[in-house]
Amino acid sequence: MTIKLDPWGAAIPENYARVMEEFGISPFENLLQDIPDPHPLMKRRIIFGHRDFERVLNAIKRGENFAVMTGLMPSGKMHLGHKLVIDQLIWYQGHKSDIFLCVADLEAYSARGISLEQSRKFAVEEYLANYHALGLNLDRCHIYFQSTNDAVRQLAFLLSKRVNFSEMKAIYGFAGESSISQIFYPMIDIADILHPQLKEFGGPRPTVVPVGIDQDPHLRLARDVASRFQKEFNFILPSSTYHRLLPGLTGEKMSSSRPETAIFLTDSDEEVEKKIRNAFTGGLPTAAEQRRRGGDPTKCRVYELYVYHLLPDDEKLLEVNELCRSGKMICGECKTKAIELMKDYLKEHRVKYRRALPKVRKIVEKV
Amino acid sequence: MTIKLDPWGAAIPENYARVMEEFGISPFENLLQDIPDPHPLMKRRIIFGHRDFERVLNAIKRGENFAVMTGLMPSGKMHLGHKLVIDQLIWYQGHKSDIFLCVADLEAYSARGISLEQSRKFAVEEYLANYHALGLNLDRCHIYFQSTNDAVRQLAFLLSKRVNFSEMKAIYGFAGESSISQIFYPMIDIADILHPQLKEFGGPRPTVVPVGIDQDPHLRLARDVASRFQKEFNFILPSSTYHRLLPGLTGEKMSSSRPETAIFLTDSDEEVEKKIRNAFTGGLPTAAEQRRRGGDPTKCRVYELYVYHLLPDDEKLLEVNELCRSGKMICGECKTKAIELMKDYLKEHRVKYRRALPKVRKIVEKV
Repeated sequence: MTIKLDPWGAAIPENYARVMEEFGISPFENLLQDIPDPHPLMKRRIIFGHRDFERVLNAIKRGENFAVMTGLMPSGKMHLGHKLVIDQLIWYQGHKSDIFLCVADLEAYSARGISLEQSRKFAVEEYLANYHALGLNLDRCHIYFQSTNDAVRQLAFLLSKRVNFSEMKAIYGFAGESSISQIFYPMIDIADILHPQLKEFGGPRPTVVPVGIDQDPHLRLARDVASRFQKEFNFILPSSTYHRLLPGLTGEKMSSSRPETAIFLTDSDEEVEKKIRNAFTGGLPTAAEQRRRGGDPTKCRVYELYVYHLLPDDEKLLEVNELCRSGKMICGECKTKAIELMKDYLKEHRVKYRRALPKVRKIVEKV
Repeated sequence: MTIKLDPWGAAIPENYARVMEEFGISPFENLLQDIPDPHPLMKRRIIFGHRDFERVLNAIKRGENFAVMTGLMPSGKMHLGHKLVIDQLIWYQGHKSDIFLCVADLEAYSARGISLEQSRKFAVEEYLANYHALGLNLDRCHIYFQSTNDAVRQLAFLLSKRVNFSEMKAIYGFAGESSISQIFYPMIDIADILHPQLKEFGGPRPTVVPVGIDQDPHLRLARDVASRFQKEFNFILPSSTYHRLLPGLTGEKMSSSRPETAIFLTDSDEEVEKKIRNAFTGGLPTAAEQRRRGGDPTKCRVYELYVYHLLPDDEKLLEVNELCRSGKMICGECKTKAIELMKDYLKEHRVKYRRALPKVRKIVEKV
């Protein structure tokens, strides 16, 4: 399968390309034709890079078991940007994978001062119930909380014997005023990534961690540390994939702490309407001008919503792209369309969420 | 009770006195008359200093519950120096205390590279079985391993949020090449000390940690950290007592890694004989000279054995002191006496040890 057109702005942005080259991340594109059923996020190059994904792909092709590891930081609300990872997990769940979901309550405590009790509540109501509603079968995932997972913390401590302060400082920029929990925390992160490879958890085996490129330093450190403990644990260096971050609606980075930048899965119709109406677009100052000269979807945050979420069907996406560029559909009309699609989507999601919540509460009680 | 004589060299050495003044450690002596049944180690000023012991003493007098916390590092063998702490624990067990015994297997791993399995074996065979044989009822102690005590590690992480790298560096001298496990480890130590005060462990309540003065930095940090978490945990600042370190037989510091410096509880008669014969004394070059001028027990490592362990009866100790000073008993004779006492002691101990071992194995299996 080769994609000729670039209607989703799939050329790798320059800043990403630089990081890829500097740190040895390979373009995901080169693997696409080998993947039997690539996910739309792969086809649209939203997943644009990887490290050692070949070994995961081999496991997929041979029907062999592998692990997928991801974490959630239970602060704030789940937005569409978070959904990108869940979409991938659902795809992996269709293959023979063990999915590990880590609730980073220690990180939430260390970085944001959120208590462990608050974290548990947030994790269930804002994240896990949404995951289940989206179609991830949580019954088949290994869900755990960092604060109560003894194996992970024990591993973190063991691994931290061969990582020194200078290394951590170089990666994370620690200084004298850094707290000891900040300094130790990355080791927990690394133990999260590597623990599916402990014998007691079914390892060693290929593991993939789907992340945004901003998470790459953790992955590099995890791979370094894994290689330092070959004798003890026989770790297979973890693989990773890199997806673009869904940009914020307003032009800024999407963030849970600035609600206007993101659509939350629990937003009301009114909120959806307001946020999309105020979104940054690739339109021109006047409607007349835009009808004449056309809009620019590559700059448009509403168009991103179509690409990432609202229009999984390529034909329909191309149609919107064409209507925008030709000036046949201007921003107001386009936003109305996006609002309708989003409302429909969230309406259905709300029903699923309500059904999921009590189930997920039960699942998490056992964790 | 006032002690006029100083036959056990109880004047506080100058280097201790300096530390006491600089860091605010009070002389234990001032409390002695308030203690209903002071331990011989207290009467002989081997326990010479304390911080806030008054609140533990008050609990003792009122028959109220308090906690005693100590740890053992499972590397090497248990020697008579280690026994000092156990003697104190047995005394505390006679009062209404909860004794917490921490097996510092994470420290053994971090500092000495000893695996967690090895640690478990050492802890039982070299330490805990000896403790039980000495008379500490382990059935009534809270024994735990750092590596498997979730509550302690969780607490360590929570507390580490309000301790920064500069502080730790100032206390422990960390540098760039320090490993993250070294940097994090003191927080586990502090969590060990404070966790008997968590609600789930029966706290908050007075806690005492009997230590050698070299351990004081941990105690100071533990108290600082406790005061930073008043709101969350309502900690009572932990109390501590300070005992002299039993000096090594040869003149050097006593150490498990230099067997000639210490009597181990598992030493054979031949080893005891050889070690005491070779011990450093306060004798003079020739027997004739010593008969004439007398020896100096304050310089003698064999005399220390009498003071710390072999002659709990003050009258008998004074007698040896007098015989030495007057030249009536010279080193060879005195060593023979010490060897006989030590052999008798260890002979009896061996029988108790053999009885204790299977019991202690059972107790630890449940931990």
